[in-house]
Amino acid sequence: MIVVMEKNATSEQVAHMVDRVQQLGLKAHVIEGTERTVIAAIGDKRETMRESLASGEGVAEVVPILAPYKVASREVKPEPTCVERGSLKVGAGHLGVIAGPCSVESEEQIMESARAVKAAGATALRGGAFKPRTSPYSFQGLKEEGLRLLAAAREETGLAVVTEVMSTEDVELVANYADVLQIGARNMQNYRLLEAVGGVDRPVLLKRGASATMEELLLAAEYILNEGNPNVMLCERGIRTFESHTRFTLPLATVPYLQHKTHLPVVIDPSHGTGHAYLVPPMAAAAVAAGADGLIIEVHPSPEHAMSDGYQSLTPAQFAATMVRVRAVAQALAATP
Amino acid sequence: MIVVMEKNATSEQVAHMVDRVQQLGLKAHVIEGTERTVIAAIGDKRETMRESLASGEGVAEVVPILAPYKVASREVKPEPTCVERGSLKVGAGHLGVIAGPCSVESEEQIMESARAVKAAGATALRGGAFKPRTSPYSFQGLKEEGLRLLAAAREETGLAVVTEVMSTEDVELVANYADVLQIGARNMQNYRLLEAVGGVDRPVLLKRGASATMEELLLAAEYILNEGNPNVMLCERGIRTFESHTRFTLPLATVPYLQHKTHLPVVIDPSHGTGHAYLVPPMAAAAVAAGADGLIIEVHPSPEHAMSDGYQSLTPAQFAATMVRVRAVAQALAATP
Amino acid sequence: MIVVMEKNATSEQVAHMVDRVQQLGLKAHVIEGTERTVIAAIGDKRETMRESLASGEGVAEVVPILAPYKVASREVKPEPTCVERGSLKVGAGHLGVIAGPCSVESEEQIMESARAVKAAGATALRGGAFKPRTSPYSFQGLKEEGLRLLAAAREETGLAVVTEVMSTEDVELVANYADVLQIGARNMQNYRLLEAVGGVDRPVLLKRGASATMEELLLAAEYILNEGNPNVMLCERGIRTFESHTRFTLPLATVPYLQHKTHLPVVIDPSHGTGHAYLVPPMAAAAVAAGADGLIIEVHPSPEHAMSDGYQSLTPAQFAATMVRVRAVAQALAATP
Amino acid sequence: MIVVMEKNATSEQVAHMVDRVQQLGLKAHVIEGTERTVIAAIGDKRETMRESLASGEGVAEVVPILAPYKVASREVKPEPTCVERGSLKVGAGHLGVIAGPCSVESEEQIMESARAVKAAGATALRGGAFKPRTSPYSFQGLKEEGLRLLAAAREETGLAVVTEVMSTEDVELVANYADVLQIGARNMQNYRLLEAVGGVDRPVLLKRGASATMEELLLAAEYILNEGNPNVMLCERGIRTFESHTRFTLPLATVPYLQHKTHLPVVIDPSHGTGHAYLVPPMAAAAVAAGADGLIIEVHPSPEHAMSDGYQSLTPAQFAATMVRVRAVAQALAATP
Repeated sequence: MIVVMEKNATSEQVAHMVDRVQQLGLKAHVIEGTERTVIAAIGDKRETMRESLASGEGVAEVVPILAPYKVASREVKPEPTCVERGSLKVGAGHLGVIAGPCSVESEEQIMESARAVKAAGATALRGGAFKPRTSPYSFQGLKEEGLRLLAAAREETGLAVVTEVMSTEDVELVANYADVLQIGARNMQNYRLLEAVGGVDRPVLLKRGASATMEELLLAAEYILNEGNPNVMLCERGIRTFESHTRFTLPLATVPYLQHKTHLPVVIDPSHGTGHAYLVPPMAAAAVAAGADGLIIEVHPSPEHAMSDGYQSLTPAQFAATMVRVRAVAQALAATP
Repeated sequence: MIVVMEKNATSEQVAHMVDRVQQLGLKAHVIEGTERTVIAAIGDKRETMRESLASGEGVAEVVPILAPYKVASREVKPEPTCVERGSLKVGAGHLGVIAGPCSVESEEQIMESARAVKAAGATALRGGAFKPRTSPYSFQGLKEEGLRLLAAAREETGLAVVTEVMSTEDVELVANYADVLQIGARNMQNYRLLEAVGGVDRPVLLKRGASATMEELLLAAEYILNEGNPNVMLCERGIRTFESHTRFTLPLATVPYLQHKTHLPVVIDPSHGTGHAYLVPPMAAAAVAAGADGLIIEVHPSPEHAMSDGYQSLTPAQFAATMVRVRAVAQALAATP
Repeated sequence: MIVVMEKNATSEQVAHMVDRVQQLGLKAHVIEGTERTVIAAIGDKRETMRESLASGEGVAEVVPILAPYKVASREVKPEPTCVERGSLKVGAGHLGVIAGPCSVESEEQIMESARAVKAAGATALRGGAFKPRTSPYSFQGLKEEGLRLLAAAREETGLAVVTEVMSTEDVELVANYADVLQIGARNMQNYRLLEAVGGVDRPVLLKRGASATMEELLLAAEYILNEGNPNVMLCERGIRTFESHTRFTLPLATVPYLQHKTHLPVVIDPSHGTGHAYLVPPMAAAAVAAGADGLIIEVHPSPEHAMSDGYQSLTPAQFAATMVRVRAVAQALAATP
Repeated sequence: MIVVMEKNATSEQVAHMVDRVQQLGLKAHVIEGTERTVIAAIGDKRETMRESLASGEGVAEVVPILAPYKVASREVKPEPTCVERGSLKVGAGHLGVIAGPCSVESEEQIMESARAVKAAGATALRGGAFKPRTSPYSFQGLKEEGLRLLAAAREETGLAVVTEVMSTEDVELVANYADVLQIGARNMQNYRLLEAVGGVDRPVLLKRGASATMEELLLAAEYILNEGNPNVMLCERGIRTFESHTRFTLPLATVPYLQHKTHLPVVIDPSHGTGHAYLVPPMAAAAVAAGADGLIIEVHPSPEHAMSDGYQSLTPAQFAATMVRVRAVAQALAATP
């Protein structure tokens, strides 16, 4: 950490901050600049110290030098992690494609969806049984019945099942049916839930909160990793910005940035990331060109009749065409030195 | 809702959408414009319909006309709600001031804080026992021991206790000790938690998520209200924007906007909203001038030694001075026609 | 336009608004909903009317139905525009690649850059002679001398020259040397400048402002088109959001969105859009996968010694490798049905 | 500056960066941390250096320590600046109130406005003659005729005239009629225009761009100050965020933040900052409570008939009531120690 003093800080204030740094178990190194003094605080303690030092008298700013996450960091584990479960393999050169409807609505709907996405080349099935809905008046999901239908679809198609878990009470139940537990964007900082899925033997798909920084996302992953679950996939699904022509703004630079900082695989959700079916195919291809390790895409047999997210769901035919483009891009890049 | 058709939509597409509107139990009213056709869908169904209609062929856009929240709406209950519990009274002309440390750290710290904020005029005590922390390596709170200390501080000072609850499992425990349950910004859309506090006989202080819209905030309140708990306070604590000179951007227009739309009281948190102690006093005064029903302010006996949020905590003396300014503004406005 | 009345609007207020709509030359169509009345205002007048109607008593909101831009609209001209000048061809199936240094610094630097980008396959040369700099203390560009050097580089390499013009006084001068006039993001709403370049026989590369909406960008293009210059390229160079790990947030969904709304070609700037050289190659490939009509990329013979934007500039070797990836993606997609 | 090396940077890379720092005329100070090396670069050079160093091999990040602005800084001139011209006095304890219509529309309209705002206590008159409009189809202002009408209104009422100048060609013309030159938000980084108004003997009201940082705003002011014009007022008029219930998000923490960093006065524009007339009075009072040195408010004799911005304009009666509240708050705070 670098403690930057105010221009007019007194030597007493500087001496006091040197003391504080040392009390925190760090080494203090004073540098007299032409305009102000800065104190380098050396050692491996992190976040907490910073808050504490920042309120010292005469302190202008405390600049952190070390990233606050550890286990998720590429500096700690340089080789990429491949998350694998059943038919799904994501990371370290494996492109996983998770597809299916926003919500499980009926046996017919989920079976038809599963067959269609499998035929087009998806490697896992998505479908919501517990649905976090902005409005209490919206469809809240089929709950356990939905989980049963997902398991039946896996039975028939062999596709691994990815589904969301919304609360600690449901973790065990959902894990009984699902292959991968999804943490939704709204729960990215629901720390008790992160700890709960960290204690379960299932890979986790962790969605970025709509206004979460990269650091916050990696620290959320760290909550899971620290409980002993090493199989975390990070999912970019768009951030909230001033743009209103798309549902969210989908920043694909997340892919190479995260791959630089962490060994965990990165999955892109172009459905929520754009909110419009016609924008999904080009953004899926773009995600793969940016180097994404996986995709998660909403597909519905009849988007017009979907109980949620119909406007951003692809038809099976649109999804099949998207897969052709996605594969073409993946192969082209694989063939490039 | 207004269903806007594409410029080149066919008459079959228009007829199809008219059918869809009617199937949904709404009345369809077709308007032929000079450039395109729009269909007004009349009736009181809400959100769900919109998603469904938006994916029809030839549809350019579906524009909602009705707000999706009901019970929270000022149209349904025109007179302002006053939330009251113990020493705290917020709304309908009552200015509540909740103050205290970010975290409960020790008996001495919370007692000293409670006495100081009471002396300066606070009407409730805040203090975190369960702390949602971005990093798993940060101090996570004293948990039940913290709750006990808060109750002891209430015993001595008579101040109502406001404290955060982070998960459904803890709701009963926290309610046993606290007067007001706080839902943090990161849990604003943790719907199971909202339902849980909706079933408890305690007022709720619901903090706005860092990127939540007004509609999302009011729908989150609606989750609580719908469970039978009418005592919800909405709290603006800043939103995430491109600004980095403050911790968050604190938009005070939230106050008059919400007061226009809802009967629920509006509380401002200038501590998290700015992230710097020197910005808290002017923003507290500004919040009251904007018409806020309450304030929640971080105060610590020694901010430099705080285990969290030290850089944004006021000393007791700074808080006392802030209260003088706040009262001056409140009285000036009360005396104005 | 749809004029939405307040729930408790009186019939006098409704009648008054009907009058207002008719005074503005529009036809009024009243629809009585179950909760409130809306008035559809039919006709082809735009923007101005809306502002005027919105302040009527009893009016809750005025919802526009028509996009405010006309000439830029795909509804008016369905076939895509190809902008062409010298070696540069962008749009309607032609992928243009503009590359070169942020600033022209010396004869040697611009010549070396031009040869390198030409060899790697760029179809135009970029280079700033007039530089808009955030700080008055930063390098402001070589001005006319820079333009002369750019022209010399064109002479030798045959590459069309793209360079920024910052003020109306310089339009003629810059047009004397350059093939394409660039309007920087900070000047996207400098309307006098837009009108000036609209009156010149040179294609214009119009960069999106860092917080401009799609509508504002298209209306800025409309200022140029309306002056008689049909050759406008729209350039996405990133928007300002809460993200700080990249210089800006680069939303590639801009590409398919704009291609849906306008016939003008869309160019992506992954250099400014990310601000870090290592993020440029993946984002360049992603842009092409998203369907971009062009790229503009910063390349410098020695980024470490660049007088501006060194940290986001590619070396010639990095640029050559990027071009290989970009071409692979373009060919893969061209071969896909 | 602090040059932070990558964790695995070699000693050659560190040595190279030390050389680079010294070549730039700075002193290099190497600090070996437990995980990585940082180099403190000591001296008073600024911005340019940083860009250059950041692209060195093995460099993770370059952290600036000094603010890049100088003349605007409070460290250079600790006492607050009072900007004064005719009836207007802003800063150093003087609260200026600039009011009037968005656009000058006719003699009757501007005269009626001027009389009304003067009667209510405004200390200057605003009114646009040159209007920057998002759409080329919107009313563009009366131009010189508008300036003449403003001068006539000053003649009668004695109010100083504040009006926008949009381009360098018009600076002289506008300065001939106006007392204060306004630079609009869209032109905040139109550097040629900033230099032009820096060379004129008229105070400047510099509006913050919708996505400008504090640093960019202060550097824009620095462009003006450096040309010899010391009379700059900074104006916060709202920033662009994800919020859509207000036209912009108005961050009042700008006031105390800027007053901490600069000696220049800070003016708040609650009209553009909110976009709705009913939100203007509470936000005007809040701005004064936050310590604003001035207000600029849109007032129109008949907002419903305004040619621009009608929905955010106050009627004369609403403005008079607002002034009563504003004065009450100002007096209350002045009486507080």
